[in-house]
Amino acid sequence: MTTETDNAAFSWPVRVYYEDTDAQGLVYFANYFKFMERARTEWVRSLGIEQDRLLEEERRCFVVASTDAQFIRPARFNDQLQVTVRMLRRTRVSFLIEQDIFRDDELLCSGTVKVAYIDSDTHRPARLPQMLSEGRET
Amino acid sequence: MTTETDNAAFSWPVRVYYEDTDAQGLVYFANYFKFMERARTEWVRSLGIEQDRLLEEERRCFVVASTDAQFIRPARFNDQLQVTVRMLRRTRVSFLIEQDIFRDDELLCSGTVKVAYIDSDTHRPARLPQMLSEGRET
Amino acid sequence: MTTETDNAAFSWPVRVYYEDTDAQGLVYFANYFKFMERARTEWVRSLGIEQDRLLEEERRCFVVASTDAQFIRPARFNDQLQVTVRMLRRTRVSFLIEQDIFRDDELLCSGTVKVAYIDSDTHRPARLPQMLSEGRET
Amino acid sequence: MTTETDNAAFSWPVRVYYEDTDAQGLVYFANYFKFMERARTEWVRSLGIEQDRLLEEERRCFVVASTDAQFIRPARFNDQLQVTVRMLRRTRVSFLIEQDIFRDDELLCSGTVKVAYIDSDTHRPARLPQMLSEGRET
Repeated sequence: MTTETDNAAFSWPVRVYYEDTDAQGLVYFANYFKFMERARTEWVRSLGIEQDRLLEEERRCFVVASTDAQFIRPARFNDQLQVTVRMLRRTRVSFLIEQDIFRDDELLCSGTVKVAYIDSDTHRPARLPQMLSEGRET
Repeated sequence: MTTETDNAAFSWPVRVYYEDTDAQGLVYFANYFKFMERARTEWVRSLGIEQDRLLEEERRCFVVASTDAQFIRPARFNDQLQVTVRMLRRTRVSFLIEQDIFRDDELLCSGTVKVAYIDSDTHRPARLPQMLSEGRET
Repeated sequence: MTTETDNAAFSWPVRVYYEDTDAQGLVYFANYFKFMERARTEWVRSLGIEQDRLLEEERRCFVVASTDAQFIRPARFNDQLQVTVRMLRRTRVSFLIEQDIFRDDELLCSGTVKVAYIDSDTHRPARLPQMLSEGRET
Repeated sequence: MTTETDNAAFSWPVRVYYEDTDAQGLVYFANYFKFMERARTEWVRSLGIEQDRLLEEERRCFVVASTDAQFIRPARFNDQLQVTVRMLRRTRVSFLIEQDIFRDDELLCSGTVKVAYIDSDTHRPARLPQMLSEGRET
């Protein structure tokens, strides 16, 4: 991976509904990964990329190659959260981002996601769209 | 719809995990529909139909056209449930089944599902596989 | 049920993410029920009711007693939807609403939901908050 | 963390249903974490621990403190998978396990999960049940 870093964090609001919680009364751990993907999708959209068109017209899609997360404090039913996206590193065919989940100023969950860009038919690596491969240092 | 009825109920076990529950401590209502589909999938498999092959080789799939459910008593985390499938009516291109969810002898949820068989490319109705269109009265 | 009707429809936007779709390329049928509940939660919030406080302070919660839905046309990945809530009937302890899901002016899914208000400890019916039991005819 | 290692892997079967897949035609990445938890729950049950009783009678529960996963090859609709659990390390109040997901002999996903044992009321660390804290070297 190359080492340029983009410190501008994108942020997206997520409300916690019953569907997101479990019988411990808290957000079910695997659902934080869904929240992160919602923010990631909106971040990609903010760069001008609509993934449905990408899939239909160019047969390209993003896939999660690996991820990790630390669950620091629990989110609860009805909480209003903010989910951030921060570019850490990128190559020609993948990028690594940090995603944090906050309730007000409190950090609840912190993770990284390595996203690969692939040909949806062959599942081979594809060259990232310019919007994502260009540095946006701040 | 024609009126033949198949009274032989197929039954499939489902265990309730944390992923299925919500902050009220019970199974989240929309997840009962997932349990019903698992049983429906296994029932179709028991008739000799593998839906992945159907989709890839014949470009055919089942879709839920309509459904309803009554939530009578709640299922809880760690419960062992049984989900039944009973054919109520069928036409050449769809069928209506009843699906009940039990914990031991206690009925927790009862619903019906109208399943249509379609061409996955055109989304037009397709003629049901013989296994499903043939009467199996008991 | 009494027969007063409230024709004012509340509407809430829902974006379709990958988490909501399935291998047929469309929104997974059970997830429409989640979309309906998100709109229902926001409608209840718009009436001044925060369900987390209700549960903690008054030990009361809403539960789905029964539901039905017709899946008319499929929603797809990345679609922007609108989900409506329209009061049909209410009693002292429950209400029946209609919920429709639109993509632009196209009706994709139409359902009804009977919601009961209960004591979260005893699971017995409880009298609806005034905000919900009062008629809001238009 | 102490360094004793338990090499005996527990394995649990998981079938992929439509609910688990997304519009890319593959298992949605966050759902692999659900599959891992199902296997984890059954592994804990195999040690004699029923988590619903634990929560009700002792006010204790397991929570995921952190997790990571590499998605090596995709699982597809209708696949029959095996999910393993292997103890890596444990302390008095938490343990670290490795969980792999296989289709036949093919490794699809590999992850680790750090599970903490807590008091469900105070959310403070609690001492692990003897079944889990005892070494089971092989």
